[in-house]
Amino acid sequence: MTRTRFHQGLDDLKQKLLAMGGMAEQAVERAIRAYDNRDIAVCELVLRDEAQINAAEREVDELSIDLLAMQQPMAVDLRFIIACIKINSDLERVGDQAVNISERVMDMVAQTRSTLNVDIPRMASLSINMVRDALNSFLTANAEMAQSVLERDDLVDNMNREIFEAADYAMTHQVEAHRDALDTLIIARNLERVADHATNIAEDVIFWVRGTDVRHRAEGQTLTGSS
Amino acid sequence: MTRTRFHQGLDDLKQKLLAMGGMAEQAVERAIRAYDNRDIAVCELVLRDEAQINAAEREVDELSIDLLAMQQPMAVDLRFIIACIKINSDLERVGDQAVNISERVMDMVAQTRSTLNVDIPRMASLSINMVRDALNSFLTANAEMAQSVLERDDLVDNMNREIFEAADYAMTHQVEAHRDALDTLIIARNLERVADHATNIAEDVIFWVRGTDVRHRAEGQTLTGSS
Repeated sequence: MTRTRFHQGLDDLKQKLLAMGGMAEQAVERAIRAYDNRDIAVCELVLRDEAQINAAEREVDELSIDLLAMQQPMAVDLRFIIACIKINSDLERVGDQAVNISERVMDMVAQTRSTLNVDIPRMASLSINMVRDALNSFLTANAEMAQSVLERDDLVDNMNREIFEAADYAMTHQVEAHRDALDTLIIARNLERVADHATNIAEDVIFWVRGTDVRHRAEGQTLTGSS
Repeated sequence: MTRTRFHQGLDDLKQKLLAMGGMAEQAVERAIRAYDNRDIAVCELVLRDEAQINAAEREVDELSIDLLAMQQPMAVDLRFIIACIKINSDLERVGDQAVNISERVMDMVAQTRSTLNVDIPRMASLSINMVRDALNSFLTANAEMAQSVLERDDLVDNMNREIFEAADYAMTHQVEAHRDALDTLIIARNLERVADHATNIAEDVIFWVRGTDVRHRAEGQTLTGSS
């Protein structure tokens, strides 16, 4: 009976973490929509919903601690819950990046637009997909999927470098639009950090699945992630 | 006997976390020294030592998980260990900011210097002190000290905004030195993130101490932080 309650709690934790991921992804998507349309109303939506993401983070933490306190978890479950706490923190910071982007967009609205040849929406969609896949790799205990997230980080890093150089060039050649270029450069850095959080999550997944595997062989326990 | 081993483990965890904090602080201090002297050799030192900080992070995580697995921890000890895991992750990211700063400094070495009237070393020392005090507030379970860290965040935010505007102005008025101004602006943002991590830690401390207090009254347990 207690064991059943514990497993219900684990399922609940997964659902909450998934919802947290959805909120963080939506925040970045909105921030990029705001960038695309220089839309202050959408920026304000992102700023408004930050408190909600922070509250969701606390909830996941509290549930994790309750589960740890409820009973002596088996090694696999213990590692799963600890990974939840770490991933939760990364997702909250993805939300922070959305706020940072929105603040830059609010700064851009009044500025002369530069004619930068950069694809921020593509960089955003790469980064958001990394977060989504990292979270899914966790919930399905799929180390291969996590590995594929790690491999995509270079792509985003390269885009960040390209945008940095393009914006840097624009700053000296379109001086009247330098602030727009500067804000774009910072937004690219924020997206690069979103991808970094995805990478952190993927690393936690690999660490967790491997740890699980080792203990699985040693103690004959089943995998929490596939329960 | 097992209980004693558990408490030795907790003390060991504290020491490891403190060492982790020292490494992260040193990395930022070195990065700022590198900035001050435009010193590539010191930048390389920061980049070299990043792997060491990452390894230390894994060690703290592993020890935390071992302690959680060792026995059913009491609620206060459980919250203490979870706080260690969260703070550990913040400290590792403080180290990441030192790496980011060093990369900017390496970019600056070849550039024409701008004549920005900004005090990066002061901003750095404010931010590093926030990290140090946040960590000490944790190890002494001092919510008041943690509160004082939160209050200093605005100061660093304001410095960041001032440096942003000063660098932005320099970009249009010293176009030949715009890249130096740009790199300085990014370094200020990195320091602002160091202060954010200190804030995160301080918030965890308040969350932990309050949680402890509540459970302390309910269950009559002693405070891990003062043991």
